Amino acid sequence: MSQSDQKLQTLKGFRDFLPAEKRKRDWAISQLKKVFEQYGFDPIETPTVEYQAVLLGKYGEEAEKLMYTFEDHGKRKVGLRYDQTVPTARFLSQHSHKLPRYFRRYQIQNVFRAENTQAGRFREFLQCDCDVFGSESTIADAEILAVFYRAYVALGISSFEIKLNDRTVLFDKLTPFATESVSVLSIIQSIDKIDKIKEQGVLAELESKGISQDKGKQLIEALQSAKPSESLEEIIDHAVALDVPRKALVFNPFLARGLDYYTGLIFEGVIPEYGAGSVGAGGRYDHLISSLGGPEIPAVGFAIGFDRTIEALEALAILPDLEASSHVLVTVFSHELTAESLKAAAAIRTNGINVEVYPVEDKLGKQIKYADDKKIPFVVIIGPDEAEKNIVSVKNMKTGEEKKGSIEEVVHTLSS
Amino acid sequence: MSQSDQKLQTLKGFRDFLPAEKRKRDWAISQLKKVFEQYGFDPIETPTVEYQAVLLGKYGEEAEKLMYTFEDHGKRKVGLRYDQTVPTARFLSQHSHKLPRYFRRYQIQNVFRAENTQAGRFREFLQCDCDVFGSESTIADAEILAVFYRAYVALGISSFEIKLNDRTVLFDKLTPFATESVSVLSIIQSIDKIDKIKEQGVLAELESKGISQDKGKQLIEALQSAKPSESLEEIIDHAVALDVPRKALVFNPFLARGLDYYTGLIFEGVIPEYGAGSVGAGGRYDHLISSLGGPEIPAVGFAIGFDRTIEALEALAILPDLEASSHVLVTVFSHELTAESLKAAAAIRTNGINVEVYPVEDKLGKQIKYADDKKIPFVVIIGPDEAEKNIVSVKNMKTGEEKKGSIEEVVHTLSS
Repeated sequence: MSQSDQKLQTLKGFRDFLPAEKRKRDWAISQLKKVFEQYGFDPIETPTVEYQAVLLGKYGEEAEKLMYTFEDHGKRKVGLRYDQTVPTARFLSQHSHKLPRYFRRYQIQNVFRAENTQAGRFREFLQCDCDVFGSESTIADAEILAVFYRAYVALGISSFEIKLNDRTVLFDKLTPFATESVSVLSIIQSIDKIDKIKEQGVLAELESKGISQDKGKQLIEALQSAKPSESLEEIIDHAVALDVPRKALVFNPFLARGLDYYTGLIFEGVIPEYGAGSVGAGGRYDHLISSLGGPEIPAVGFAIGFDRTIEALEALAILPDLEASSHVLVTVFSHELTAESLKAAAAIRTNGINVEVYPVEDKLGKQIKYADDKKIPFVVIIGPDEAEKNIVSVKNMKTGEEKKGSIEEVVHTLSS
Repeated sequence: MSQSDQKLQTLKGFRDFLPAEKRKRDWAISQLKKVFEQYGFDPIETPTVEYQAVLLGKYGEEAEKLMYTFEDHGKRKVGLRYDQTVPTARFLSQHSHKLPRYFRRYQIQNVFRAENTQAGRFREFLQCDCDVFGSESTIADAEILAVFYRAYVALGISSFEIKLNDRTVLFDKLTPFATESVSVLSIIQSIDKIDKIKEQGVLAELESKGISQDKGKQLIEALQSAKPSESLEEIIDHAVALDVPRKALVFNPFLARGLDYYTGLIFEGVIPEYGAGSVGAGGRYDHLISSLGGPEIPAVGFAIGFDRTIEALEALAILPDLEASSHVLVTVFSHELTAESLKAAAAIRTNGINVEVYPVEDKLGKQIKYADDKKIPFVVIIGPDEAEKNIVSVKNMKTGEEKKGSIEEVVHTLSS
């Protein structure tokens, strides 16, 4: 690609969204917002740019290499939003006196990471976070599971499943196998890979860390026989009371979540018909916010991987077909009849129907072809005959059927 | 402010939006989206980060000083979105083969400018753009005026007025006054300030440019007696046919719009009850897209100043009161009765009502105070009595009134 080609391109890992794609994404976002608010979550927004002091030292060295950082015009060291948790810790600290004691917030914003784009990753992508701050109770955990489940049902995934575990189960079962050189967290990180690298892979990795194959097998058996903790039982019962089907809540003692900061409940959402792993995940993280510079505040929540979720909905052909905003194209027959077309468009719009007026005078055939190309379902025509009789013609672009009638009469056809 | 205070602060000119503010903004955005789509406009999205080659040389030297630019991890020179027009020119060029012949797009995204924050300006702020690309016809101009007008009506501004002019009127009237040293565009830039610096100010500025007070007065008289162009008359008639009240469309021969790129229609939207100038503006710019590196394509559109619009709605007390998402707080009476509260919450939610469960076991008084502080309108209580009779109590937080009944019975109260 030459320099001059580059000039008119998006950067690698950054995307334009054309209308068809953008409308699908907007639809999904509006479904998520509706469910989040149904569960009493309030939206917040934080800036795209923050002080590096807010961002650095929070994600680990490897992650920070992927952060977009620069100096602004006042020589301040700043960076682009890398996730929504760290800015939220800053937010909770800065606004604590204005927030309710128990704060349910959702946040739907883009984050920026200079990822290797060859892995099919994007450098600007949307995150959808939902969290309850301030409560250590299993009620908060259950509300989080319920809103997570219901969000996917609202997107059309009635088979949605949540794999559950409790970090304390992992600690109880795995601590006996930890040694001076292999910590429990290190074992958990290996266990976390069992879906990807299978039991054999985990055993090999543990062996490389210094845990014998025998001990490794014992450790896996110990997990296989594990039961949910009392707290996890209560969370599940609460979630069922909140109308989540019990069969959608699947205890999985091998679920580990690689991140070290989880302190209790951990979970991942999967779409059984869609093979490619979890589409969203979360858990309880009671000490993270204070460690990020925020107040000492317990928290439980999840993040939805929006791109992967959209990918799943596309793969399962669940997304509604939202090609164009326009439901009706009103054609313009001639210069003399333009006003008639405009009046008709206005009248149809007052009925809440999305209408586009063909924006030049042109041959009728070209106008109808335009509607066809753009997949606009109905075309309205007002020629001299129609104008004289104060009616309009409507053509159904799918069936080819044509009807004539007053605006009031055809609005019925257009709405159906 | 010490370094350690800074760590937990937003950057100057960047904002957090707390729930009350964010929900108002979300409401306004959803109203705008609804109207834009009613007029057949489709949403698009472009990346926050672009090649500097896309951005530079487009806005003028002064403006470019305010652009956020940096080098990314691959040493590419990049910058943050400065407006939505320049990225759209790139978009139109990159995706031309996938776009309809007449492309109506809207775009609602944040832009970034290192403005002087003392002037009450923000460094990250939302722009709402609507444009029709591909049509030179007055029909497109009229559709743009209609959607602009209707957008403000949807926000609650029934008195909305659009000041209109045609660049060709200005050129016709002012060209005779141009000299070798004072161009017509320079005169237009002075005329553009007449609202701010009054006639005296304009005369003084023109004099400093080399146009005598006498000539200046003649020039102003020439504009005072100006009539709309034929094209502008037609645009107004079309807009009226599209159901825009004629009195909302006010010809103003002094309206100049400082920007050089407008080629025909120019307009500004004002809210008469709100004094602080225009809340949005636009016009026809038939050569801009190609000059920005896009295809040769005529265009007409507008940008809504979202912050100023919100400010006006706040000042006029038009914004709905959207304190919290939750319409109902379901309290938790005791550990034993938790499941009853959760079931009630689930049942109320299935009726489309936003419900929050108090997320810990606590004294009832504290729970009710929480609802009061958060302005949640209803509180549901399920004590031992209610549980036994399979009913719930509902307290209206405004009137203090209490009712008891089955979920089905109280849902009616909660919905009203």
